[in-house]
Amino acid sequence: MRLKGKKVVCFVDAEFEDLELWYPVIRLREEGAEVHLAAPEAGKAYHGKYGVPAVADKAYAELSADDYDGVLVPGGWAPDKIRRYPEVLDILRQADTDQKPIGQICHAGWVLVSAGILKGKKVTSTPGIKDDMTNAGATWVDEPVVVDGHLVSSRRPPDLAPYARAFADKLAGE
Amino acid sequence: MRLKGKKVVCFVDAEFEDLELWYPVIRLREEGAEVHLAAPEAGKAYHGKYGVPAVADKAYAELSADDYDGVLVPGGWAPDKIRRYPEVLDILRQADTDQKPIGQICHAGWVLVSAGILKGKKVTSTPGIKDDMTNAGATWVDEPVVVDGHLVSSRRPPDLAPYARAFADKLAGE
Amino acid sequence: MRLKGKKVVCFVDAEFEDLELWYPVIRLREEGAEVHLAAPEAGKAYHGKYGVPAVADKAYAELSADDYDGVLVPGGWAPDKIRRYPEVLDILRQADTDQKPIGQICHAGWVLVSAGILKGKKVTSTPGIKDDMTNAGATWVDEPVVVDGHLVSSRRPPDLAPYARAFADKLAGE
Amino acid sequence: MRLKGKKVVCFVDAEFEDLELWYPVIRLREEGAEVHLAAPEAGKAYHGKYGVPAVADKAYAELSADDYDGVLVPGGWAPDKIRRYPEVLDILRQADTDQKPIGQICHAGWVLVSAGILKGKKVTSTPGIKDDMTNAGATWVDEPVVVDGHLVSSRRPPDLAPYARAFADKLAGE
Amino acid sequence: MRLKGKKVVCFVDAEFEDLELWYPVIRLREEGAEVHLAAPEAGKAYHGKYGVPAVADKAYAELSADDYDGVLVPGGWAPDKIRRYPEVLDILRQADTDQKPIGQICHAGWVLVSAGILKGKKVTSTPGIKDDMTNAGATWVDEPVVVDGHLVSSRRPPDLAPYARAFADKLAGE
Amino acid sequence: MRLKGKKVVCFVDAEFEDLELWYPVIRLREEGAEVHLAAPEAGKAYHGKYGVPAVADKAYAELSADDYDGVLVPGGWAPDKIRRYPEVLDILRQADTDQKPIGQICHAGWVLVSAGILKGKKVTSTPGIKDDMTNAGATWVDEPVVVDGHLVSSRRPPDLAPYARAFADKLAGE
Repeated sequence: MRLKGKKVVCFVDAEFEDLELWYPVIRLREEGAEVHLAAPEAGKAYHGKYGVPAVADKAYAELSADDYDGVLVPGGWAPDKIRRYPEVLDILRQADTDQKPIGQICHAGWVLVSAGILKGKKVTSTPGIKDDMTNAGATWVDEPVVVDGHLVSSRRPPDLAPYARAFADKLAGE
Repeated sequence: MRLKGKKVVCFVDAEFEDLELWYPVIRLREEGAEVHLAAPEAGKAYHGKYGVPAVADKAYAELSADDYDGVLVPGGWAPDKIRRYPEVLDILRQADTDQKPIGQICHAGWVLVSAGILKGKKVTSTPGIKDDMTNAGATWVDEPVVVDGHLVSSRRPPDLAPYARAFADKLAGE
Repeated sequence: MRLKGKKVVCFVDAEFEDLELWYPVIRLREEGAEVHLAAPEAGKAYHGKYGVPAVADKAYAELSADDYDGVLVPGGWAPDKIRRYPEVLDILRQADTDQKPIGQICHAGWVLVSAGILKGKKVTSTPGIKDDMTNAGATWVDEPVVVDGHLVSSRRPPDLAPYARAFADKLAGE
Repeated sequence: MRLKGKKVVCFVDAEFEDLELWYPVIRLREEGAEVHLAAPEAGKAYHGKYGVPAVADKAYAELSADDYDGVLVPGGWAPDKIRRYPEVLDILRQADTDQKPIGQICHAGWVLVSAGILKGKKVTSTPGIKDDMTNAGATWVDEPVVVDGHLVSSRRPPDLAPYARAFADKLAGE
Repeated sequence: MRLKGKKVVCFVDAEFEDLELWYPVIRLREEGAEVHLAAPEAGKAYHGKYGVPAVADKAYAELSADDYDGVLVPGGWAPDKIRRYPEVLDILRQADTDQKPIGQICHAGWVLVSAGILKGKKVTSTPGIKDDMTNAGATWVDEPVVVDGHLVSSRRPPDLAPYARAFADKLAGE
Repeated sequence: MRLKGKKVVCFVDAEFEDLELWYPVIRLREEGAEVHLAAPEAGKAYHGKYGVPAVADKAYAELSADDYDGVLVPGGWAPDKIRRYPEVLDILRQADTDQKPIGQICHAGWVLVSAGILKGKKVTSTPGIKDDMTNAGATWVDEPVVVDGHLVSSRRPPDLAPYARAFADKLAGE
């Protein structure tokens, strides 16, 4: 239980990629981490692209970056909505400043683009948003998982196993 | 019938925003323009976010930029797919070079970002992709319709009336 | 903006044909008309056959025929419900008496049948309800758009461009 | 098994009212009747408004009125399609001439309107099509089941029990 | 109307098999029986696997076994939920003790398994739960309808006609 | 990568519980195991209760128990179908005889009931099938994960983290 005592926040909104949200969340819980799902409204059920539900533990507005040791951003169409919340972007910027692990997969990169924390970073993502990532100042590579400092990125659902593992390792300080 | 003789291509893929695709297409036809729907596969029915169907007249691969006097890109999630086709990007780049009218609405801007034709242009779009537009070199303003040279852009479905009108005027050379 | 100052009411209920409702509404707004969506309940979202939403501006019960210069009836399955409201039929009858433009497309004709205003009129519609139109006293022809006095009728979605144009012309007094 | 040896054809198309199709069909089979589902294409599965499937035993084109002792027409939106097939209308007209039992429920009346066999008949139906029935020459009453000679009609799903019973009695010659 | 005066309760929960619920219910009403739909919550609409609605007349908690002359359990996935309610199991046990007719079809058998009333009984069901029925002490046979004392069982929708008839006969005391 | 070289088969059919299928599969792959999805038809996409797809690597008919070191059975409604395949039951029986790890979660227990391998075993499952498990000879307890020899069982999605970990440990021989 090497993640015992670690707290992670995962951002949620409608039409998240179902497995990209849930696999890393459950995986971190397996090693003892406490993972909160945060969304526009606490207590509400949001549904993934396929329909898997996720009930929000917290509202964006009640989050404090200091409470968390890491941040997860899922893929799907949810990032197109998540990136519009200043509270979310603030938390990502502070996590970036504090060099806490930030995990992004597939279309999640849009949220980091809006947070403005990709300049000079090496990342991957779905090829669909490669141009947005590059325009935001990142160097884009086509690999299952890319770890650049505290930033962990991945491409798509078939990469979930190494992605979640890499994020867990980073969170554990390994 | 001031658009008689004009030919326009509109790009299509699954999960287009239903009205953002169909309103401008029918509107241009009303004034005599011939509008082709082009998609990855000709003859196939693609469905919008709500489910309205659109059967492709042409495949991307059989398009020639010289055949058209204008280009339309709809919103929805389709642009995330459309931007991945080099043939589409080539046609947009040539239309841009030839200063032919290019219409984009809502999330359509992603395709123009990938075509690399937004540098120094004044545009609008859904606020959700404002950062991607800005990072691609555009100046973003929050107005129902923005016309900058041959580039006509708009924000979302409630702006469809002035958007289609502005594109028709541009196509008519007015 | 030749329709500036004109007011039009469009009847709505669940399972309207998505484009048959929205194309004429947006088209009239483009030329300056004020178009109200009226349904059984004001402020409620009704969804088309494919799922496109339409929020009602007005409830049937609060409508007054004198407030409007024209009436639109969309197709789909909604007409099967719309025709059951006496308030709707009253407004149609008064618009008919006042010779204000009335637009109907596809299955919309059922509502005019129930209003009893088709006797001696030349109309078109989806072929599916041809017999109901004929039994109500109309002469049915198979043309994209039929204009008989203040009555404008059309067959189906591919006829939307000339249909909306003909209704706009009639409303403009042309 | 008082219906042993009796053959009935029931018309089917997409979006039939699920119970209005299946209750009478199974009910007649219970008493020994052989009931065929006929649709535009034999062997194909059609789905009701809610999604219950019905696989067609016969295509309309291969039907012969002489083979059947009675005809059933279900409600839902299917009648709007069924009424467009001349083969269907021919069978209804011959059954009417031969005074064989014809059952209709809810919106099924549209098919009989198009067959032109309602003149002078007393019927019921969903109130939604009352005007179409009346315009076709019928006298419309608001009762759960109406039997006028060989014609058996009903209003909606809550009337299924007496409707199916009345049709079975008529088929049995009682 | 040989079932006049008879009262039957039919258990309902989400995802019942649409026809397996409704055919027997309407069939018994045809002969005069009063049939109540009972579910976890009275007045709420539950939907079948295909989507056909069923509004509950009664809540499980307000039922009294003495009020009914027979019990129906539909198939589908609903039995997986229905079997978890002690009130339902109590009613089944008392009906069994009182030798009142109990009808089960398809997956309904799970509820009788949980009520513990299958020991030594001859039954049928969907083949899918044959092992659960056998393990509960029943003798399983592959026949359209099986009547063992007051217990009437059936396999699947194509068996509905003889199943409902057999239950009605049993309820009538024939 | 302690599971390098281990091979596991996971049974699939329509309407599996989406996370109950995918979490353990990806989790085992993370540690190097090769996991095959097996279904009635190889190469076909099956969809979970919410709609997440799973393409079958193998058909049931081409499986050989000797090729695998462990077996996974997901929950949802899929087990109701999976339990009907003799090939599946044979593989489970042989894995049981060979004392290879067998994982079951939620409704998966039905498949083990039909394989007849629960006699004298301590297990858990969704409470919904507790009676079926008990009748099959098992002792049922209400705990997140139960390990009895080579048999690993769990209750529902919130238990996925410890369930997958327990199965991985067992597969690793720990």
